[in-house]
Amino acid sequence: MSETELPDAPTAAETSELDEDDRLKPGFVRAVLDAVEEGDPERARALVEPLHPADIADLFELVPADQRAGLAHAVHDLLDADVFAELNDWVREELIDALEPHEVADIAAELDTDDAVAIIQDLDVEDQREVLRAMEPDDRAAIEEALAYPEDSAGRLMQRELIAVPEHWSVGDVLDYLRGNEDLTTDFWEIFVVDGRHKPVGSVALSWVLRTPRGIAISDVMKREQTLIPVDMDQEEVALRFQKYALISAAVVDASGRLVGMITVDDVVHIIQEEAGEDALLLSGAGEGDINEPIRDTYKARVRWLIANLFTALIAATVIATFEGTIERLVALAALGPIVAGVGGNAGTQTMAVTVRALATNQLTQSNTLRSILREMQVALLNGSTVAALIGTAVALWYGSPILGVVIGGAMLANITIAGFAGVLVPVALERFDQDPAVASSIFVTMITDSIGYLAFLGLATLALSRLA
Amino acid sequence: MSETELPDAPTAAETSELDEDDRLKPGFVRAVLDAVEEGDPERARALVEPLHPADIADLFELVPADQRAGLAHAVHDLLDADVFAELNDWVREELIDALEPHEVADIAAELDTDDAVAIIQDLDVEDQREVLRAMEPDDRAAIEEALAYPEDSAGRLMQRELIAVPEHWSVGDVLDYLRGNEDLTTDFWEIFVVDGRHKPVGSVALSWVLRTPRGIAISDVMKREQTLIPVDMDQEEVALRFQKYALISAAVVDASGRLVGMITVDDVVHIIQEEAGEDALLLSGAGEGDINEPIRDTYKARVRWLIANLFTALIAATVIATFEGTIERLVALAALGPIVAGVGGNAGTQTMAVTVRALATNQLTQSNTLRSILREMQVALLNGSTVAALIGTAVALWYGSPILGVVIGGAMLANITIAGFAGVLVPVALERFDQDPAVASSIFVTMITDSIGYLAFLGLATLALSRLA
Repeated sequence: MSETELPDAPTAAETSELDEDDRLKPGFVRAVLDAVEEGDPERARALVEPLHPADIADLFELVPADQRAGLAHAVHDLLDADVFAELNDWVREELIDALEPHEVADIAAELDTDDAVAIIQDLDVEDQREVLRAMEPDDRAAIEEALAYPEDSAGRLMQRELIAVPEHWSVGDVLDYLRGNEDLTTDFWEIFVVDGRHKPVGSVALSWVLRTPRGIAISDVMKREQTLIPVDMDQEEVALRFQKYALISAAVVDASGRLVGMITVDDVVHIIQEEAGEDALLLSGAGEGDINEPIRDTYKARVRWLIANLFTALIAATVIATFEGTIERLVALAALGPIVAGVGGNAGTQTMAVTVRALATNQLTQSNTLRSILREMQVALLNGSTVAALIGTAVALWYGSPILGVVIGGAMLANITIAGFAGVLVPVALERFDQDPAVASSIFVTMITDSIGYLAFLGLATLALSRLA
Repeated sequence: MSETELPDAPTAAETSELDEDDRLKPGFVRAVLDAVEEGDPERARALVEPLHPADIADLFELVPADQRAGLAHAVHDLLDADVFAELNDWVREELIDALEPHEVADIAAELDTDDAVAIIQDLDVEDQREVLRAMEPDDRAAIEEALAYPEDSAGRLMQRELIAVPEHWSVGDVLDYLRGNEDLTTDFWEIFVVDGRHKPVGSVALSWVLRTPRGIAISDVMKREQTLIPVDMDQEEVALRFQKYALISAAVVDASGRLVGMITVDDVVHIIQEEAGEDALLLSGAGEGDINEPIRDTYKARVRWLIANLFTALIAATVIATFEGTIERLVALAALGPIVAGVGGNAGTQTMAVTVRALATNQLTQSNTLRSILREMQVALLNGSTVAALIGTAVALWYGSPILGVVIGGAMLANITIAGFAGVLVPVALERFDQDPAVASSIFVTMITDSIGYLAFLGLATLALSRLA
């Protein structure tokens, strides 16, 4: 699409290797693999060379696991730090295992601390030590310091390369400082102003520095109201804070308030995406749920969940078993029960998904929990009445038994209403107990809707039958 | 938490109105509402005044709908454009309906085009016309132009305020231009270099401009390899592109390749979050799934889904009904059938969630679809064998009937295997037919796992019983 629209502005997104969604075309991937298999690394290299690092990373994710080492060998000189920074965690680990420690060290050395840490923290302790030993002392010190912070914390996420200037400087001083120091990072979007104890007192967007005469004091153009990130803050909180306050970069401070690093939005974007996407996976019990995850890990993650669900299913089965007498008298109940349980489960899942989302985005707090419950109850009553009327009528007509229609309709209404209640209450309760609502909610909600569904339906049926008798 | 850690660096995130997750404390929200109810707007204003716009927006989302107008009246002068830009769509619409067109126009005029459009596009045509009539001609023109682009397109997302300079300029020219023009935007992170026909030929990060001597030509420091965004590109694609290439801002070009606007990452972050979080909601059939959505809309969105599920449940019921003879002979089957169907459904949902996620993040393409299917089949066989062994043994022991154990174990293995297959195939197929896999997948998958579950279990049971007889 871009191709036809942007004839004379070549961009990474238009090179013919990519389709309109920026995905590598199957034909291209095959061509590269063929070249590798036919022992023609030069051709493979020629194909891969023009790709953006992010696309080279995609390429490695798209080729079969057993062919990645061969491809890596063929294009080893294109496998630079930027590519590794973009690689899927599982694929990256795999490639790094295939490399020599000193090769990993060379790659890590090129990276900003945050990306280097991302690579090294995945290695097992033994390899970590080897890689670190092979690094320059300064780099090693920076990495080791970062690794000292808890996993998924701001300390792991931040880069130490940043621009900090004393508050008494003028804009001119800043410009001279930036122009005079070759070795400063170029990956920054604002300048942090610090006091004598290296505590941030303000920040200046580069656009302001550019538009201010040299003579003006930096402290006169800096923004004093700034959002600081505690070094031990969880990355999910960091992501929410970046999003809420629309930050491009933010200063990271240690427990004593000193400036120790900087986090830029491009590092946070991945986390926002992962954290937000995680819910769909967690709610389904698929754990990390990555298609590159080793099968063993996937099996472990999922089977646990299925066994948990097996137990909840057994509870429902016990409920049904207690009504076997009723079912023997009217076997049709065996076919109808699952309808009540199933649709109730769906209703509960809807409410639960919305609640989990609202909790994750801080939309749902103590201030509006009660209101949300009332809201969901109203929705549940509306949904319940509608579905109950439909199934009640259908069953009454089909079996020519109005009473059976009333039984299933009543059970359906009851189950959907309770489902709506549980759909809010379960996640909220889990959150209060500092559990991730996305992880365990659906087990409980399904357990409730299954049991209540059969209990209500078969219970009402038993009463009705005894009436009829 | 920040409070104790950053004694002398006050930030929005630490003001005592916020808890450690940057959420407004219930006590604070109540205090503001009390002030409003007691007819003391001054006190309410004093409480709200120190808040960050994003927090003021949160406040309006947290208070009950019927008290928002009163609060808005009390703090009307704090309700500036930044607050509206941060408001939840539903709450924003509500507040805007409460305002006069000229008030909305004043607010919109303060905003960059992208935020102004976000507000105005939600109004109904009548109000839109009124608001636009009340705006300055230039602002109106810009907004109307933006509204001409399809909803959720880059054209709606971009801002027209950007810095573009001719390629023959020197760094000095750029600096003088920036310092000389008061009315330029300050919300930019890179400068776009354009040719005579206003087509982007490169871009320069501000950090580069700052570090380059005045004499150097801008074309010597600019990055020629840039990612352009076609003005009609869907916002989801834009978000993926920003994420993939770690962009801070990008030039938006029209069909002829001319620079027409700029998108900055802070506008994209919300989309990445929404799009990624959407899947959990869509998979559950909760539609937009926002806790601020009017109940009527929520009901409409969800009941459709429940009715669809009602039909799939009826299909399963029909399957069961055809085996009523078998159930009459062994009523225990009525209690055991749902176990096979339920756990199979869970297994299918796991695979489906992972597949939908992989499709949404472009991890799963034609190149690795077959591999993913094989992978899921292996996981399914492992999960199936484990769960089958467990339930088979349990049932055999409980009912003292090895053959019944074999029957349920075999049915479980079959259902979980087919669930894994359907879990990949259904979303992939929907994607191929340009349907959103997240929307319809679970209906089909559940239908399959329910029907197959009962069919396999009751079918095997029938065979087994006839053997026994």
